Amino acid sequence: MDFIEIIAKRRDAQPHTPDELSFLAQGAAQGTIPDYQLSAWLMAAYLNPLSEEDAALLTVAMADSGERIDLTGLPKPWMDKHSTGGVGDKTTIVLLPILAACGLTVVKMSGRGLGITGGTVDKLASVPGFRMDLTPDEMKEQAAEIGIAITGQSAALAPADKTLYALRDVTGTVRSMPLIVSSILSKKIAGGAEIVALDVKCGSGAFMKTFDEARQLAGWLKRIGTKAGLKVQCEITDMDQPLGCSIGNALEVQEAIRVLKGEEQGRFYSLCIEVAGSALHVSGKADSLDEGRALAREALQSCRALGKAKEWFHAQGGSLSVFDHEDWAVAPHTYAIHADQEGWVARVDAEIVGQAVVDLGGGRKRKADEIDPTVGVVLSVEVGSKIGKGDLLATIHSGQPNPEALTDVRNAIQISAAPAAERPVILATDRDL
Amino acid sequence: MDFIEIIAKRRDAQPHTPDELSFLAQGAAQGTIPDYQLSAWLMAAYLNPLSEEDAALLTVAMADSGERIDLTGLPKPWMDKHSTGGVGDKTTIVLLPILAACGLTVVKMSGRGLGITGGTVDKLASVPGFRMDLTPDEMKEQAAEIGIAITGQSAALAPADKTLYALRDVTGTVRSMPLIVSSILSKKIAGGAEIVALDVKCGSGAFMKTFDEARQLAGWLKRIGTKAGLKVQCEITDMDQPLGCSIGNALEVQEAIRVLKGEEQGRFYSLCIEVAGSALHVSGKADSLDEGRALAREALQSCRALGKAKEWFHAQGGSLSVFDHEDWAVAPHTYAIHADQEGWVARVDAEIVGQAVVDLGGGRKRKADEIDPTVGVVLSVEVGSKIGKGDLLATIHSGQPNPEALTDVRNAIQISAAPAAERPVILATDRDL
Repeated sequence: MDFIEIIAKRRDAQPHTPDELSFLAQGAAQGTIPDYQLSAWLMAAYLNPLSEEDAALLTVAMADSGERIDLTGLPKPWMDKHSTGGVGDKTTIVLLPILAACGLTVVKMSGRGLGITGGTVDKLASVPGFRMDLTPDEMKEQAAEIGIAITGQSAALAPADKTLYALRDVTGTVRSMPLIVSSILSKKIAGGAEIVALDVKCGSGAFMKTFDEARQLAGWLKRIGTKAGLKVQCEITDMDQPLGCSIGNALEVQEAIRVLKGEEQGRFYSLCIEVAGSALHVSGKADSLDEGRALAREALQSCRALGKAKEWFHAQGGSLSVFDHEDWAVAPHTYAIHADQEGWVARVDAEIVGQAVVDLGGGRKRKADEIDPTVGVVLSVEVGSKIGKGDLLATIHSGQPNPEALTDVRNAIQISAAPAAERPVILATDRDL
Repeated sequence: MDFIEIIAKRRDAQPHTPDELSFLAQGAAQGTIPDYQLSAWLMAAYLNPLSEEDAALLTVAMADSGERIDLTGLPKPWMDKHSTGGVGDKTTIVLLPILAACGLTVVKMSGRGLGITGGTVDKLASVPGFRMDLTPDEMKEQAAEIGIAITGQSAALAPADKTLYALRDVTGTVRSMPLIVSSILSKKIAGGAEIVALDVKCGSGAFMKTFDEARQLAGWLKRIGTKAGLKVQCEITDMDQPLGCSIGNALEVQEAIRVLKGEEQGRFYSLCIEVAGSALHVSGKADSLDEGRALAREALQSCRALGKAKEWFHAQGGSLSVFDHEDWAVAPHTYAIHADQEGWVARVDAEIVGQAVVDLGGGRKRKADEIDPTVGVVLSVEVGSKIGKGDLLATIHSGQPNPEALTDVRNAIQISAAPAAERPVILATDRDL
């Protein structure tokens, strides 16, 4: 097969054959198609988007480009969870233990953070000893034992996606719906999942800025997922303000642990219950979304989820002391931001806060950047909070004195003299889509 | 400057700035922009074509990406000639001596052949000793002495075009009007030309198959050339049947020498007179196209062009014995094709004949292929020829016994029982465009 002809088909907006997309995925995985040809195809695919049929074929072809984790023998259903990424999104750390506590097998491949949307890999890596480099065999073994396993993106799983994603990142071809969707879902299939719970984020701190874009992505994910043989459940959730109170790697793990311990009940808690409830419903563990939510709440209240989280951290080498106290990752400098007027919090701009955390060293501007796990922002208010003059709005945790992030976070929090409504965290459930 | 932003502009069909196109050309020339980013830009430029303004800027930027031959001090005008490539097109070998004999300074950079359209570099390289690797300084020195110099594409001149063309060839982005035009003209500008005579070929053996496409290309060449500071003169000429009687490297040099000696007066001779006449007119050496044609005819009849050709071959190391006899390049096998019916020649398909010569080893399928200079096809008829049964139609010169080309060439020559009209060689002059 001649890849130039495959490029020409995409260029001329012709449908591909399954063989062509398989040739593409194998060539990308094995390095037999040169990067300059792949990037020409990617730009052609950006400007002449793949059909849903072709996107589904590409998804499966990329899943087949490397090893696939075979969960045969493990308790069904086999579930994965994915968020499209947002500021302060530590949902995975709470969700996986809830689902495993409810009897699901949850095997997840997770990404590193780039730009303002953090990555679960970096968050868990802040826990002393936590291994994010499990092999497919170790994943399966651990999932068989405790129902949960997580790993960073492995060269073994969906290697075609790794090559193509790296090229998209440097050729202006990231924002293509069929390419985004096939990238997300190929890793789920390679990881062995049958059911995927997808949390599509929407707002200033998310990849999709508007509800329309988010709904379009959710629709693509559901349709392509179905064509590729997955059961896909989507929610669209708010990412216009950061999710939860903490943004920054260790700070987010600490917040997740407080939720697992039942010490926090805010918007982040609500999101966890919603996504878990939806996952339990779609997996058949609950007969309705309401029953799913109830099961999720019960898993937290009974501390069964907390127990599962400890088993999980322990199995992957993570120190259990992080469950006992919060002084395992402390930045040398903290700065409090106080309100200079009374009123209501009208906006907490997730994009600005996310960028401030990157600037503090808590995220990457370039792939090779090192991360400081201790830095970040802790918010004491959210949209709709009534505040008095001098009240604490946020605390900056910094490695350096007087960081610029101080001014940025102050500007991210807008106060209005008139009451501002709280924002719902769930913008649309699967049923609305 | 970040090249990803330049890719994004092309992807989104935005105009470029001169700085961006200069950054692109310099990056392509120096290897500081990776191939995978250049090819993404090229595909974006294929699907969202450059405006005429941007194509002119790119032309100049590519000309400026390497050395530029400065012809200051040499007799004006400084002329280059270019053909868009065809089967049997050996015009350069006759034209340059005519123009130099008429007082023009002709400095030309020429390409190697790829596919069915041969390259002047390969044709002249069949002459024992002929050097096609003159440096810019040697070019200028020789042009000052005898008025003619030719070289193969040099790494020194328009290196950005060399990089981009090689990438276009393997990424399905060759057929983009603005990219074709900027590639052609950047080399003319780098070579020092002020005036360019362009022979746009049209028909089955040419890059442009239809008259409309050829006219479109001619229009682009004239407009972009003018914007880039050149004086451009175009003809559209027939390439539906091969040009002249010989196709194959040494065979074509032999035919060109016969024209220089005044021994041939057919369609190829007419084309040479037309292009030379047009070039002499546009350069101001003749007051009208008719006067230009007359000057060209006179240069041949007086043998001044032949004398200039000998000076030229000698200056570049070529053996002058090729002017005295034709046995300097002989293929071991020849096969005659005879007519199996009487009638008129209705078609000689240039594409099939060109492909047959490539198959004989006279052209390249891949860039690294070696060429056999001796092989080729000599036609004894052209469209419109009246023939009797058993008349000689063509002779195949082959390195191997019983080549497949024998059948192909036989099939390329169609004979009809009804009279077929001769085809004009000039389809449109500059004035018609």
